[in-house]
Amino acid sequence: MPVQMELKRIIISEISERQIILLREVDDGSNSQDLRSFPIVIGIFEATSIDRRVKNIVNPRPLTHDLINSVIESLGGDLQDVVISELREHTYYARIRIRKDGELTEVDARPSDAIALAVTARVPIYVAEDVLEDVLNEMESD
Amino acid sequence: MPVQMELKRIIISEISERQIILLREVDDGSNSQDLRSFPIVIGIFEATSIDRRVKNIVNPRPLTHDLINSVIESLGGDLQDVVISELREHTYYARIRIRKDGELTEVDARPSDAIALAVTARVPIYVAEDVLEDVLNEMESD
Repeated sequence: MPVQMELKRIIISEISERQIILLREVDDGSNSQDLRSFPIVIGIFEATSIDRRVKNIVNPRPLTHDLINSVIESLGGDLQDVVISELREHTYYARIRIRKDGELTEVDARPSDAIALAVTARVPIYVAEDVLEDVLNEMESD
Repeated sequence: MPVQMELKRIIISEISERQIILLREVDDGSNSQDLRSFPIVIGIFEATSIDRRVKNIVNPRPLTHDLINSVIESLGGDLQDVVISELREHTYYARIRIRKDGELTEVDARPSDAIALAVTARVPIYVAEDVLEDVLNEMESD
């Protein structure tokens, strides 16, 4: 079962190319003491793009992730959610899931694009349960 | 009639946020002495993205403009071309044109995204004739 996550924090460093976003399990009320979270390293462009969304900074012109959403809608699709589906050699892989004519289409993406798109289109972010377990195990052993 | 353009040069400045790409009319053999060209100011992210495409630098993971192309294809569309369609108060507007089930769908985009996508998907870049005339007039009067 994929676990629904929310964007908990964006840590932007001006002296580094590598920025960090922190995802945390969504509190369903049952275990608010023990919500799992993990960081993902992303590029400055994606971090800035996500940061602007979260802060509701309005852009006068459609930015790149707005464009992706427009493309989906203009082709009759509907972004359903995004899933961080895999962790392989310290690299995360994600998929964006689009519903169209009752069918679900999955498209491979980097987690940074997937999350920026989810924040733009206000759809849920999921992470596969095994990915979440693997990353938490890795973090413990570090 | 839109005029087909090609990406002639990308000028990346590391000390500025504003980068420049130069578009030049495609030489159809009839007027190679007098090819029109003009610059567009874009952001560093888009400039770097375009530069990597042009240099055929392979990315191990799909970048944002690859993702747009994947989304188009996975929804049964086919990117036909991009058009810089308007110049309003010194700002360019563009459209990406997607063919699907024999119909043409146009989606608004910033020229930087449109050009990055065109270079990624290897489709033509057009500029509306009146936009080209306007920008050349402006450049002369500057």
